[in-house]
Amino acid sequence: MLTDTLAALKPADPTIAATVTAHLDNLTKPTGSLGQLETLAVTLATQTGEAFPRVSPPGVLVFAADHGVAAEGVSAFPQDVTAQMVANFVAGGAGINVFARQIGARLEVIDVGVATEVSAPGVVDDKVRPGTANMVEADAMSRDEAVAALEVGIRAAERAIDAGCRCLIVGEMGIANTTTSSALLAAFTEAPVAGLIGRGTGIAETRLAHKQAVIERALAARAPDRNDPLEVLAKLGGLEIAAMAGAYLGGAVRRVPLLVDGFIATVAALVACRLAPATRDYLVFGHRSREPGHAHALAALDAQPLLDLGLRLGEGTGAALAFPLLESATRMLAEMATFESAGVTAGSAG
Amino acid sequence: MLTDTLAALKPADPTIAATVTAHLDNLTKPTGSLGQLETLAVTLATQTGEAFPRVSPPGVLVFAADHGVAAEGVSAFPQDVTAQMVANFVAGGAGINVFARQIGARLEVIDVGVATEVSAPGVVDDKVRPGTANMVEADAMSRDEAVAALEVGIRAAERAIDAGCRCLIVGEMGIANTTTSSALLAAFTEAPVAGLIGRGTGIAETRLAHKQAVIERALAARAPDRNDPLEVLAKLGGLEIAAMAGAYLGGAVRRVPLLVDGFIATVAALVACRLAPATRDYLVFGHRSREPGHAHALAALDAQPLLDLGLRLGEGTGAALAFPLLESATRMLAEMATFESAGVTAGSAG
Repeated sequence: MLTDTLAALKPADPTIAATVTAHLDNLTKPTGSLGQLETLAVTLATQTGEAFPRVSPPGVLVFAADHGVAAEGVSAFPQDVTAQMVANFVAGGAGINVFARQIGARLEVIDVGVATEVSAPGVVDDKVRPGTANMVEADAMSRDEAVAALEVGIRAAERAIDAGCRCLIVGEMGIANTTTSSALLAAFTEAPVAGLIGRGTGIAETRLAHKQAVIERALAARAPDRNDPLEVLAKLGGLEIAAMAGAYLGGAVRRVPLLVDGFIATVAALVACRLAPATRDYLVFGHRSREPGHAHALAALDAQPLLDLGLRLGEGTGAALAFPLLESATRMLAEMATFESAGVTAGSAG
Repeated sequence: MLTDTLAALKPADPTIAATVTAHLDNLTKPTGSLGQLETLAVTLATQTGEAFPRVSPPGVLVFAADHGVAAEGVSAFPQDVTAQMVANFVAGGAGINVFARQIGARLEVIDVGVATEVSAPGVVDDKVRPGTANMVEADAMSRDEAVAALEVGIRAAERAIDAGCRCLIVGEMGIANTTTSSALLAAFTEAPVAGLIGRGTGIAETRLAHKQAVIERALAARAPDRNDPLEVLAKLGGLEIAAMAGAYLGGAVRRVPLLVDGFIATVAALVACRLAPATRDYLVFGHRSREPGHAHALAALDAQPLLDLGLRLGEGTGAALAFPLLESATRMLAEMATFESAGVTAGSAG
């Protein structure tokens, strides 16, 4: 299934851009005066292949899993919180629930590898294994497990799209997953770990040096080949990051705009792009996170996010907050009058 | 009426901030992890005086008027376009219409001084005079007319709030109004005109020097006393900018959050703050415009906008695009579970 998806994934179609740009320049506004919203409209058109793209309803996919590296004391929260937050997601009380309701999203919570049994009704059980191994001591998972986790994401994307979703927002929950993400980013970019780590959910400044040392030990011990993205993913984890990458692949193959959240989501998008570079064409970046590694992850994908609000929650929240701008871009194309239809004299740039 | 409004306008109440911050820190997310959205929630609470503020439905007020200085050839569009765009607003085809529909806003279009007769049905006729005089040659309007235009705005804010609106977005249409706004900003801040002007709706780079010279001639000829904001407004204009300032005053006195658009709206907000400094407490800034003078206007109000999307359309569009973030901030407060209610273990910063 992964092999078929990678083979079927095609670049976006740039030929529609000229048509959309010409339409934008006929709308009753000075040329280019809606700035990035106009760029966004063109991007959504090339992604979907439609001159009047639609992005509603969006689908939110929240993947949850645990990380063996949590045993190293890299998070401010105990590992139990992953399962507790899964229960919060299905009860509708987390940040992503609130913003998903606001934007009329279909929300699905998928257990791809929570360490304990998840009993909350409404969670999609697609567990590959109960948490990864501690990457400091062993490979986080096997290569087959990494493929299985990617396929969990592909299937989730297909379910959302088959249910009518026209845009995907991929979120996560997994205690210690900023540590895993920093390790993945360091492995792919060879950038020094010190610049790629942050306080995550809120560890003290003094614990940052420990987090850095843990990641450096893991990278030295695992020594993944950065030209083999599946190996990097298997050796470092995590299960939910693999599933997120899979969801991006599954969305891209169906030509659905993928609205990327913060640090962890961007690293997952980088994994997807290393597996299939054309995935990049289907990404729209929601926001710039306060997590220091995010700037590096964005740079690795040559990405300019829509929002910059100092967020660092994850779950897909920053992407959900940015979604109304995608909706605005599509409405601008579909609903604004042209100079001719409105009887407005067009300006001259002279 | 203006005198009464200025006398009744009181600062926002900062005492509620501690209550709201304590609630935010109990919600199921790492402390402070929703960044500026949390700051925004506290601001909306101090503005409204409610621990769980509401901002929907918003009211959009679009004020239209003409500027005598258009005769100097400072715009890429002929003056007729003001009236043509008013017709477009009531027909629902302009950018602000599209985004107002998206956010469920009540939209009102007010003719406070279009040069020609406006026959479009649905426009609120509150014309003070048919366009200002050319500020290069004469005072744009009399002091009494400036008061009347401010009162048009106060009345419009009252109508919107009486109709149930919980947040005001104030927009404008007036060919040449970036020229007037730059003149006002230069008069208030004494900054050099060269740094306060831009291409407006799209004049060529080569016409910028002409625009600068026109503003400098007007400032020299009118020589307004910057410590008398009503005199500055009367001498330079414009009628819609005065009405916008009035709408901010009328909203602030009713403790309604005022979501400020781009360059012209920010200059109007500056006028309101010079008339009644407590108005500043009720402002939230929607976006950073590409119009160069906007950075100076924002700095004069110590303002940090929510969005930075290279917009320069006006009409209230940038504020309308930012509105979903205000809605998100209020929903975060009202709908997110607490650690206790969700049974989630709170983290330690240790």
